[in-house]
Amino acid sequence: MSHSTAGKVIKCKAAVAWEAGKPLVIEEVEVAPPQANEVRMKILFNALCHTDVFYWEAKGHTPLFPRILGHEAAGVVESVGEGVTDLKPGDHVLPVFTGECKECRHCKSKESNMCDLLRINTDRGVMLSDGKTRFSKNGQPIYHFVGTSTFSEYTVVHVGCVVKINPAAPLDIVCIVSCGFCTGFGATVNVAKPPKGCTVAIFGLGAVGLAAAEGARVSGASRIIGVDLNPIKFEQAKKFGVTEFLNPKDYDKPIQEVIAEMTDGGVDRAVECTGSVQAMISAFECVHDGWGVAVLVGVPTNDAVFKTHPLKFLTERTLKGTFYGNFKPRSDIPHVVERYMNKELELEKFITHSVSFSDINKSFELMAQGKSIRCLIRMED
Amino acid sequence: MSHSTAGKVIKCKAAVAWEAGKPLVIEEVEVAPPQANEVRMKILFNALCHTDVFYWEAKGHTPLFPRILGHEAAGVVESVGEGVTDLKPGDHVLPVFTGECKECRHCKSKESNMCDLLRINTDRGVMLSDGKTRFSKNGQPIYHFVGTSTFSEYTVVHVGCVVKINPAAPLDIVCIVSCGFCTGFGATVNVAKPPKGCTVAIFGLGAVGLAAAEGARVSGASRIIGVDLNPIKFEQAKKFGVTEFLNPKDYDKPIQEVIAEMTDGGVDRAVECTGSVQAMISAFECVHDGWGVAVLVGVPTNDAVFKTHPLKFLTERTLKGTFYGNFKPRSDIPHVVERYMNKELELEKFITHSVSFSDINKSFELMAQGKSIRCLIRMED
Repeated sequence: MSHSTAGKVIKCKAAVAWEAGKPLVIEEVEVAPPQANEVRMKILFNALCHTDVFYWEAKGHTPLFPRILGHEAAGVVESVGEGVTDLKPGDHVLPVFTGECKECRHCKSKESNMCDLLRINTDRGVMLSDGKTRFSKNGQPIYHFVGTSTFSEYTVVHVGCVVKINPAAPLDIVCIVSCGFCTGFGATVNVAKPPKGCTVAIFGLGAVGLAAAEGARVSGASRIIGVDLNPIKFEQAKKFGVTEFLNPKDYDKPIQEVIAEMTDGGVDRAVECTGSVQAMISAFECVHDGWGVAVLVGVPTNDAVFKTHPLKFLTERTLKGTFYGNFKPRSDIPHVVERYMNKELELEKFITHSVSFSDINKSFELMAQGKSIRCLIRMED
Repeated sequence: MSHSTAGKVIKCKAAVAWEAGKPLVIEEVEVAPPQANEVRMKILFNALCHTDVFYWEAKGHTPLFPRILGHEAAGVVESVGEGVTDLKPGDHVLPVFTGECKECRHCKSKESNMCDLLRINTDRGVMLSDGKTRFSKNGQPIYHFVGTSTFSEYTVVHVGCVVKINPAAPLDIVCIVSCGFCTGFGATVNVAKPPKGCTVAIFGLGAVGLAAAEGARVSGASRIIGVDLNPIKFEQAKKFGVTEFLNPKDYDKPIQEVIAEMTDGGVDRAVECTGSVQAMISAFECVHDGWGVAVLVGVPTNDAVFKTHPLKFLTERTLKGTFYGNFKPRSDIPHVVERYMNKELELEKFITHSVSFSDINKSFELMAQGKSIRCLIRMED
């Protein structure tokens, strides 16, 4: 297959977002061959993530349409551009919305994964090398999304944003590793680093928060306290090792005070996965003095202001933020897939729904209703 | 000598603060023998610290007078109370304003030094065991200060606040280790942990900030950027390895932006030693994304609010606070003294002035004029 299409334009189906908030339309599009340092891949599975919905709704930022969304996905390399030496047609891969060039200061730092060259860019709708799109329909360019645009049977991605994984890994499961799972899981295991037996609070019990809880579970946390405004989330969360549940609406005092009372002064670690600045403040203020660490994951609004009394820091609390769970995509993600293959991680429980590609708009509805953790989108059905 | 006074009341000279902001008066006071788990020590040297001045001025908190101030000091054990087994008369010791009981959760945690039992308490003017003072004059009780009250020839301290040190260490130098030096030095070496060759910004170039700079120097920092509103501080700071100086008054944009421009995006580490909330915000926002760590040391006012945009965290910056440089007093401070004895640390340069005990009020004047880093108070002169 790859021999027949390499170097040629591929015509295939893609779900195009023509305008903000309107249902995606399955169209036949043209996908240009990969240029230097690019990879063209066949996408087999997607899972819908809130970030797709956020840029589809296009509230509060400059709209960029028509656009092919999608970034949490898995597939197989179809062909590679000039200079790509570590991937070949047939390799099983995960595309990632942020990359690893392996040459910049961030890639060379042990502490950072915020690659200077390939750091997430939600405004750019074109390829880095030539400022052009690889997608078109009847000659009209269709914009890319975070360098992945996986709501297409074929897509073109910078080689620095492609993770080669174990070919034995089931792509209909490990597709969630490419975004949501790693974001939450890494926040806990790479950044909060809970010691065995400690207490952990998780703010927000969506897919990212539940992945953070999975990180606490595999770290051997003794208590995992889930905080969410939506009580429906609590039933789901039990399967993820969450031991106690708090709804801030049920209390007439700040939830950080409730948590401090439940835990003799505060939890050892907290992970914030909502993006609400009030939840961020609560997550920081609910950790124990002396050793407490809070980690921010959720993306705030542009006008958000984090406020606290500086004494909360001086009594030896730590506040850190993370991006993509501090994982370096190409270096670290293959190991996350291996941990799943070794049965350390339970990824299946995140996938609560499944639709065929032609029904992709249903996955948007399920998410809007808060019913799904992750809805799989089967590209070949 | 210790045999003749053990178990008896000692009459000696002490500098008593009779009321807020009025010169201390050298009085003959009575010092009761140490009770269970207490140590009576002869103080040989003090150094004046801003915290003494703050509680002497008694602005913004409940005044507690008459009181014997003083907490940065060195001396020799005169006698010990019941149950004290690891100290004996003649031991060379540093009293510390915060303690280490070795039994509470904080003392048992590797990460904390905020002992539940002996954590600093600036409001308490009495001993922990019986709620009474050990100082009196003509029957009138005189209050203690942070459990140390070292502006007296003899004082009584809880054994958990007494650090036994190498008897070869010169007490007229290592007295500064008991507070100011460790607070700044530990903030850098124990909390900011600058890797060799990195860039460090220090906010506030008083004794604590210069001790933080000493931490950066011994860690092999490539650049140490000092920030202070008082240009007089800059000349002194050169002796402490500070390589560049910034006065925020010289710029019409926030100093964190100036630092980011000077350092290709930000320093690797920042340590805040002023207590100004604006300096705290600048210290946090001037560290590099991806790996930057800012550490807060300075004590803010009660109504201070730390504000920042949460994206500053999400781009992988860390903010931590510290108390006493995260040193556990009894466990860690003897090693700091050893580092001085091994000539790794240059403590002498902190001591810029020296007065006899009878001239103790001169040390307050020197500090008010901003002339001294540390003024030694020689108790036996």
